Amino acid sequence: MPTRIFGEPVKRAEDPRLLTGHGRYVDDIDLPGQLHAAFLRSPLAHARIRAIDVRAAQEMAGVVAVWTYQDIGPCQRRMPLLIPHPDLTHPATRYALAKDEVNHVGEPVAMVIAESRYVAEDALEAIVVEWEELPPVVDIERAIEPGSPLVHEELGTNVAAHYVGVVGDPEAAFARAAHVFRERLVIERSAGMPLETRAVLATWDPVHELLEVWDTTQAPIVIRNALAALFGLAPTQVRVVAPDVGGGFGCKIMVYPEEVLVPYAAMVLGRPVKWTEDRLEHFVGTNHERLQIHEAEIAVDAEGRIVAIRDRFLHDAGAYTPYGIIVPIITACQLPGPYKVPNYHVEFRAVYSNTVPVSPYRGAGRPHAAFVMERLLDRVADELALDRAEVRRRNFIQPHEFPYDVGLIFQDGAPTRYDSGNYPGMLELLLQQMDYERLVREELPRLRAEGRFVGVGIACYVEGTGIGPYEGATVRVEPTGQVYVATGMPQQGQAHKTVLAQIVAEELQIPLDAVQVFEGDTAHFQFGSGTYASRSAVVCGSAVALAARKVREQGLALAAEELEVAVEDLVVEDGRVFVRGAPERGFTWAQLAQLANPLRYAYAGDLVVRPRPWTGPTLPPGRQPALEATEYYSPPHATWASGAVGALVEVDVATGMVTFRKLWVVHDCGKMINPLVVEGQVHGGIAQGIGGALYEKLHYDENGQLLNASFMDFLMPTAMEIPRMEVAHQETPSPLNPLGVKGVGEAGAIPLPALVAAAVEDALRPFGVRITRMPLDPDTIWRMTHPEETA
Amino acid sequence: MPTRIFGEPVKRAEDPRLLTGHGRYVDDIDLPGQLHAAFLRSPLAHARIRAIDVRAAQEMAGVVAVWTYQDIGPCQRRMPLLIPHPDLTHPATRYALAKDEVNHVGEPVAMVIAESRYVAEDALEAIVVEWEELPPVVDIERAIEPGSPLVHEELGTNVAAHYVGVVGDPEAAFARAAHVFRERLVIERSAGMPLETRAVLATWDPVHELLEVWDTTQAPIVIRNALAALFGLAPTQVRVVAPDVGGGFGCKIMVYPEEVLVPYAAMVLGRPVKWTEDRLEHFVGTNHERLQIHEAEIAVDAEGRIVAIRDRFLHDAGAYTPYGIIVPIITACQLPGPYKVPNYHVEFRAVYSNTVPVSPYRGAGRPHAAFVMERLLDRVADELALDRAEVRRRNFIQPHEFPYDVGLIFQDGAPTRYDSGNYPGMLELLLQQMDYERLVREELPRLRAEGRFVGVGIACYVEGTGIGPYEGATVRVEPTGQVYVATGMPQQGQAHKTVLAQIVAEELQIPLDAVQVFEGDTAHFQFGSGTYASRSAVVCGSAVALAARKVREQGLALAAEELEVAVEDLVVEDGRVFVRGAPERGFTWAQLAQLANPLRYAYAGDLVVRPRPWTGPTLPPGRQPALEATEYYSPPHATWASGAVGALVEVDVATGMVTFRKLWVVHDCGKMINPLVVEGQVHGGIAQGIGGALYEKLHYDENGQLLNASFMDFLMPTAMEIPRMEVAHQETPSPLNPLGVKGVGEAGAIPLPALVAAAVEDALRPFGVRITRMPLDPDTIWRMTHPEETA
Repeated sequence: MPTRIFGEPVKRAEDPRLLTGHGRYVDDIDLPGQLHAAFLRSPLAHARIRAIDVRAAQEMAGVVAVWTYQDIGPCQRRMPLLIPHPDLTHPATRYALAKDEVNHVGEPVAMVIAESRYVAEDALEAIVVEWEELPPVVDIERAIEPGSPLVHEELGTNVAAHYVGVVGDPEAAFARAAHVFRERLVIERSAGMPLETRAVLATWDPVHELLEVWDTTQAPIVIRNALAALFGLAPTQVRVVAPDVGGGFGCKIMVYPEEVLVPYAAMVLGRPVKWTEDRLEHFVGTNHERLQIHEAEIAVDAEGRIVAIRDRFLHDAGAYTPYGIIVPIITACQLPGPYKVPNYHVEFRAVYSNTVPVSPYRGAGRPHAAFVMERLLDRVADELALDRAEVRRRNFIQPHEFPYDVGLIFQDGAPTRYDSGNYPGMLELLLQQMDYERLVREELPRLRAEGRFVGVGIACYVEGTGIGPYEGATVRVEPTGQVYVATGMPQQGQAHKTVLAQIVAEELQIPLDAVQVFEGDTAHFQFGSGTYASRSAVVCGSAVALAARKVREQGLALAAEELEVAVEDLVVEDGRVFVRGAPERGFTWAQLAQLANPLRYAYAGDLVVRPRPWTGPTLPPGRQPALEATEYYSPPHATWASGAVGALVEVDVATGMVTFRKLWVVHDCGKMINPLVVEGQVHGGIAQGIGGALYEKLHYDENGQLLNASFMDFLMPTAMEIPRMEVAHQETPSPLNPLGVKGVGEAGAIPLPALVAAAVEDALRPFGVRITRMPLDPDTIWRMTHPEETA
Repeated sequence: MPTRIFGEPVKRAEDPRLLTGHGRYVDDIDLPGQLHAAFLRSPLAHARIRAIDVRAAQEMAGVVAVWTYQDIGPCQRRMPLLIPHPDLTHPATRYALAKDEVNHVGEPVAMVIAESRYVAEDALEAIVVEWEELPPVVDIERAIEPGSPLVHEELGTNVAAHYVGVVGDPEAAFARAAHVFRERLVIERSAGMPLETRAVLATWDPVHELLEVWDTTQAPIVIRNALAALFGLAPTQVRVVAPDVGGGFGCKIMVYPEEVLVPYAAMVLGRPVKWTEDRLEHFVGTNHERLQIHEAEIAVDAEGRIVAIRDRFLHDAGAYTPYGIIVPIITACQLPGPYKVPNYHVEFRAVYSNTVPVSPYRGAGRPHAAFVMERLLDRVADELALDRAEVRRRNFIQPHEFPYDVGLIFQDGAPTRYDSGNYPGMLELLLQQMDYERLVREELPRLRAEGRFVGVGIACYVEGTGIGPYEGATVRVEPTGQVYVATGMPQQGQAHKTVLAQIVAEELQIPLDAVQVFEGDTAHFQFGSGTYASRSAVVCGSAVALAARKVREQGLALAAEELEVAVEDLVVEDGRVFVRGAPERGFTWAQLAQLANPLRYAYAGDLVVRPRPWTGPTLPPGRQPALEATEYYSPPHATWASGAVGALVEVDVATGMVTFRKLWVVHDCGKMINPLVVEGQVHGGIAQGIGGALYEKLHYDENGQLLNASFMDFLMPTAMEIPRMEVAHQETPSPLNPLGVKGVGEAGAIPLPALVAAAVEDALRPFGVRITRMPLDPDTIWRMTHPEETA
């Protein structure tokens, strides 16, 4: 019987090394003769540069170079616009070092390369910049008013993009609806805060004539291709490696100034150059996300069925749009969630401000979408005096309605088309887990009777995952019996080495530890984009599966030929291919790999050498000398994961603190490759979602100064703030890919703001408040619950 | 019109770098923290090791390690037998460091690794070995006599292999022949003497977890696979690079002790370790070739037509047979040359001796074969008073007789089957070049009348080239427009970067300098064997052609799809694919490479971005995101190059010196990729052949001491000794491969001993001598021409 490996909760192959301190992050790598870079960053949100005097810095002992825009050769080009969009009519990208203007606090202005980081940092202080201050644009609502100062004078507007999406006939639907409710809903600015900040180490290797770059990037191939094009090198002369990376969360996918400047410095100076972002730099030098202001309306019939939704929102783009308008596009497309919205008008403006640029952060526009949708449904329930679960039941897309078209074009350019799911089943599973009826009818009244402010919330969501364009993988059985797997994906903790190995081990029926997964290194695989959009398992995993299946076929065909039997008479079991019922007639995979190659391997122990009758080429035309396949998988459109969460929270109205008494999760990512890894992703996402719901807010003042750019001031949940959660799984396999999988990387982060809003609002019913803004800090709650004292 | 690039005498792409001193050979590479290795080598030809005391050496300042057999872990395994053969009934390979016995002067006994080579060499002298001398076996004729001491006691014989090949019925043919002539013919021991000796540099790269080895090898993939198997590493954890290599000539294809010990030391010691062979080490530590003693008989009819040949020869194997019996097999199969030999008996014994092991050296058994065959034909001509050219004419295989089977199994295990040729035409072309009739009838008598000892010789030969099993290549058009070509071949001067680029440039109609050829680096290509047997252009060139044609097809198909025209309406010219007659409707190759990939390239200048209507996967199933192909070519059997050479020599009987007055060459290697490179190969081969004919002889004394192990004592021709030669080409395309090419790497070296013997014999007709031994040194000639003084 074949051994089941796919779907088993095997332990992460990554952990023994990482947990015993043997991880190797970029900053752990030191190369002989290495120099260190530091960046002078703008202290002003908006200013013109009149002059920069670097002479004093240059003369400091240990300083090797001090560069401004004038000095950076090919890096003088504007940074690339990675994802254009027709509605992004006014894009803007920065210069690697500011040319004549800065547009946010933290923008790189000069670069010092020195013998040590200490010297480099000291030298930064010796650089004198003559500034001409310009009026900062911070408030995005004011930014679109006539007469507002402009972030980019030359664009003539602060509106980078204006998008309108229409499904059905929203105008008519609103006109005839039984009820219309309107909300103004805000999600504040936040950002990914990986424990490992960004880092780049680069060296020009004269032995291999190779620019070698270690980078914390989520997309080494993108960086490799960019560097090759920028420096006019052959792509094979650039190797980008993302080694162990300590968290990414989206903010590490970009082409950042440091990612071109550090390699350039290594090439020009002929010595390795390293730069590791410090935490302050991360707050002001790495992209943010989240701030959107929605004006949303929902129209329902008398029974609470959605007739139409209209949403107009402002999206804070920050100072530049290097990643296009992916985030608000996702918000727009995913806002309807698991519900039927027959008429839908969505419209946004992406607005420039003199703040850090915005690009996706785990969730990537989806927390906003779920927050808006779920808040609207809660409002409907409350207004029509319906149970909140019941309102959802009445609006779900039904299991027989897949594939289901939302009617808009998704972030990947393909239709927003849900592939499969069972939303009613998912909710019922959640309610059952929660013992919802008893909870709401008995537990809540009992606790409230004790004077406690407790509340129950539920929230449902969908997540477009596994988008294209494609990923690829090479699978090869080595003559040693080891199986080599290479992909273009890096990881920042997602356990690719485990789950991709499971896919291969299942196909070849070999032990997991026979599979070696190489990832995040352009020397191993060089086509693909990277890890983002909850796509690795779906797109890369599928490519791995296709390649492994092809290798399996190659092995079966070769064994059949050697054994002179039909492929149908063979089985693959116990790491071998053999004749059904005659296990002694067969080969190990190592033996098959050796047989595939007419060349003997010196020293190969269990060598199978069969002198072939050479009546023709030893390698017949079309045959390769290896069991090896490179396959690509390109999805027709996204796969749609979904989930439902429930919580019982308690609010301490004296302090404004929110405590989870219970947290339930139902998640559906199709077939699970490894339930342990899926749960880890869900746990992590939920934790991050709790951060977004209760803690994480980047606070800019009106001058564009980030007031809480440290972990003393910017709060994130610790393990203490994360409750134990009960996770249940539903599996609705995706019909789109060979594994039936959907993505799970961002899942948990999406519904938590909506959930916390619902539960806290429920807890605070005595105060009659509506929660319309995230995160929900104690101060806000205190004000809500003490209106008389804050009036 | 397509531009012709294939077949053009373009200049070598390699030369600007090499000629301006920018070559990078292994010894040019120094790595931080590098250690240096030196080897203690046996001073005795045959001895048992009683004890080795390394204590004094270990205690020397700067010495890091002193290893003997006991210390070398996995390297304790016997060195591999690379090419087994059924008739090699008594194989023997060495230990990387002698275990308990040494079998030739120069065999590695201990290894010192130290901070510098100076320290390491000094430490060698402090190692004390207690030897028990054993009787050395040097004379291979005595070695097969009963009671001879044995090289390998445990084998019970000095005969490693006994081979008998029979075609037709030689016994009967000899019995009925009109004439039978017999010769004893000897070719002395010699060896390849590349200007760059062998060298190995190895490092364990902890950043990439990679064993990286730079090695002067002709077969980096073989070394890579051997090291991976020996050390239990995944093959991808070992990278072997043959950078610039200064000559190979066959002796650099092997797995030598230093090639496993230096990498092992780098892994164990955690520091880079380098070893560069000195010249003395090269003489006694790198394999030799050539010594064979033939007892040959030819049977002819009354008109000088060959009826049968019988040849029994002894082949000196040296102390071990790591490369099997390839050399004498080649001699046996190629002896009939371009002539019809209907009945043929060939038999050899490969005999062990306490000398350096024998493996192929440019020519690889063929100079011996041509020497025997041509000497026999000259004898026939002289005995039957026929012109030497006329005897050959009467015996040639005719152009209509291809494919022609010799009747024996060749070195590659396939039939010795000549694919194509025109031997009569080749000889007539040579004679025409020489103005043979005038030369022989007028010039010679005139010169001789002046009292000068002048003679004319001709010699013809065939060369089995381009053997399997296979080679492969990857060709990829980069989005930058550069074309990447990777193969498993290294080079030692054969201009692969030029000729492989020509093949690709021709197919894609792009400038030569747009093609970048990566070779000799397992990081770029990892299946294949290496450069030997005049096979690179044939086997690797064909793989490159197949891959380039596939890429061309991919480009045409993509352009046809984009332009909505049929492939047949497109042309490939000027680096573009466009509609015939409408050059503006088309794409550069760079544009096509970008179109092939649904992913945009940041910074790519001439980016073609076409928003595709995404109605399905952006990368359709079966489509890859690149114009890229990896193809393998596996020949059914060898291709057969051929040649004819002629010379007018003059002998100074007072000094025994031989001078070329004229040297003519006709060579046929099928289609020429680059006539300039072909001529370079022919010139080099001829020079080496002149060395073999007049200078190169390794002289062992009866104790197994090599008496002339330096360039003071071992003579090689310099530019002064090489005459101007007239080279003409004949092209009989090979029907076996897509390019119609045959190999040319060893060509010139093959016929020269036969040619010189013929011409000198002709010059010395007044003395009635027969030349039966090569090389022909002045001393020998002096003795021949002064019989009275040497009697």
